[in-house]
Amino acid sequence: MTKKLNVAVVGATGAVGSKMMEKLIERKFPIASIKFLASARSAGKQIEFNGENYTIEEAKPESFEGIDLALFSAGGAVSEVLAPEAAKRGAIVIDNTSHFRMDPEVPLVVPEVNRHALKTIPKGIIANPNCSTIQMVAALQPIREKFGLTKVVVSTYQAVSGSGVAAIEELREQSAQWDAGKNVEAKVLPVKSDKKHYPIARNVIPQIDKFTDNGFTYEEMKMINETKKIMEAPELKVAATCVRVPVVSGHSESVYIELEQEATVQQIFDALTDAPGIVLQDDIREQLYPMPIFAENEEPTYVGRIRQDLDNKKGFHLWIVSDNLLKGAALNSIQIAEAMLEDHLL
Amino acid sequence: MTKKLNVAVVGATGAVGSKMMEKLIERKFPIASIKFLASARSAGKQIEFNGENYTIEEAKPESFEGIDLALFSAGGAVSEVLAPEAAKRGAIVIDNTSHFRMDPEVPLVVPEVNRHALKTIPKGIIANPNCSTIQMVAALQPIREKFGLTKVVVSTYQAVSGSGVAAIEELREQSAQWDAGKNVEAKVLPVKSDKKHYPIARNVIPQIDKFTDNGFTYEEMKMINETKKIMEAPELKVAATCVRVPVVSGHSESVYIELEQEATVQQIFDALTDAPGIVLQDDIREQLYPMPIFAENEEPTYVGRIRQDLDNKKGFHLWIVSDNLLKGAALNSIQIAEAMLEDHLL
Repeated sequence: MTKKLNVAVVGATGAVGSKMMEKLIERKFPIASIKFLASARSAGKQIEFNGENYTIEEAKPESFEGIDLALFSAGGAVSEVLAPEAAKRGAIVIDNTSHFRMDPEVPLVVPEVNRHALKTIPKGIIANPNCSTIQMVAALQPIREKFGLTKVVVSTYQAVSGSGVAAIEELREQSAQWDAGKNVEAKVLPVKSDKKHYPIARNVIPQIDKFTDNGFTYEEMKMINETKKIMEAPELKVAATCVRVPVVSGHSESVYIELEQEATVQQIFDALTDAPGIVLQDDIREQLYPMPIFAENEEPTYVGRIRQDLDNKKGFHLWIVSDNLLKGAALNSIQIAEAMLEDHLL
Repeated sequence: MTKKLNVAVVGATGAVGSKMMEKLIERKFPIASIKFLASARSAGKQIEFNGENYTIEEAKPESFEGIDLALFSAGGAVSEVLAPEAAKRGAIVIDNTSHFRMDPEVPLVVPEVNRHALKTIPKGIIANPNCSTIQMVAALQPIREKFGLTKVVVSTYQAVSGSGVAAIEELREQSAQWDAGKNVEAKVLPVKSDKKHYPIARNVIPQIDKFTDNGFTYEEMKMINETKKIMEAPELKVAATCVRVPVVSGHSESVYIELEQEATVQQIFDALTDAPGIVLQDDIREQLYPMPIFAENEEPTYVGRIRQDLDNKKGFHLWIVSDNLLKGAALNSIQIAEAMLEDHLL
């Protein structure tokens, strides 16, 4: 990785954008130049990166002249307009929003699962999958490779940071209101732009993103459709229920799977041991299992509570936890770029 | 219900016991006399019931002389020793602990599901099921009666009050520590008597009760075994993952079921509308779905987020919420006694 790139970060001040900057530095990403782009509202603000100050510039089509790699996480509307403009000017776009994910000409990539999809990028745009999907497919892929996979039933326990900086602040404020015996005010969750808002402190909310017409939320449909696309398995059965819990960062998932072949718990352990990006945390004698407070700011996807279904030798339970802002967003984006550099695709 | 009963409450100062007292008053349970029993440690303390003061007496075998109905919620060890003594003296025992639940000679009852089981009480003891099981079987029974039920996969979001008064206090203390930027201390959850303790504030813990040898927790095995016993369906496939969340009271459950026959969402709605003890809260246009903060101190079991599996016309998702201290414990116990009075069994 000696080649150095001209990088643009769009949406650097958001929850994901700031983690993206951290990871670029930490992982010594080979940067020739970097610029930070945002809406006109944020333009002119100062931002620090690796000890130097930068002025945030307004994102315009011309901003991407000479850029090799553009990292987008400023919302679907911004990506819709500017990602094609960046690509047109020769940049490879890695987009964190959902806008292009289901476009058949846009690869949707978790490097541990479908790195090969990076070889064909017809639009110059690569989509980073939904946070709750990434950690699940990363954990299921090593099992699927050995035993096949026919069905996934997932219930999520998702952190508020997945809904942005305002939701993190809302949990903090509501907790303080609760502690002080005051009325709890809800303005952000479950979805800022939806009609009703409910408290998240001391509560769980079974709605993430808005509802689609079929009764599932967009978040649930993302998990269903993106899992099939990343795994290139349209016939895979995926069912999801997505729930917000009062956790700051770190999504947890209770996942029930059915395999093509019978397996043992030991064989599932073996499949996950040394799997890329996976850390097995499963020792019931020591009460060892993944939990979000211990996954925050950590890169791996943690897997534990592995059990065989008592009624079905092809059925297994897993408990999967990862930092939704890292593997679920910023880290996976950077890993896509690193994989492309290694494979001489960038 | 004109007959009046001599009642003993064992464990009145606990989280469930105090709710039991509330419900006895609220529901105008026909009481001739009442006494409050506890360990020697609590004996002598004063307790208020319906505007009158009572002295807590030490629970001994002789305490149950002349008692018609004994309500136990003072832990399995107390029930093990004293429930048979109460029954021997002619009392009907309704036991909230897990001690007798799987005894084939002890009926395990949710009145909406298997009220008929109250007709045969060989040991004079009736067991009140596990909190997370009660609300699930109450919601599934009306569906099962119409369409049959072959499989249940449940992931729970359980409130801290299920672990008692000390766990409620621990959540409060940890939240205050968190808000003040202090270190969070864990001494109670997941299981007071287990080796390790983890914070519950801003976390979720995938352990409720201790682990059994097969990798499932006792809580998970209770949901599996008790569901089959209450529904009298040993062939029913039940798979459970039980998780503690930072909610005070109100257990939530993400339940995936497979039916014997195909059904539509409207048919599931129809089966649950007017079902005893069930309130349907399902209108996605109005963002109406059950949530624990709105279920606290309420008697019904709330059901919403009903969706047909996109890959299986016999598969459905439900989101079930109820107050774990009420329908999950105290209320169900009192309802068992009320059903027996109505059926002239007490």
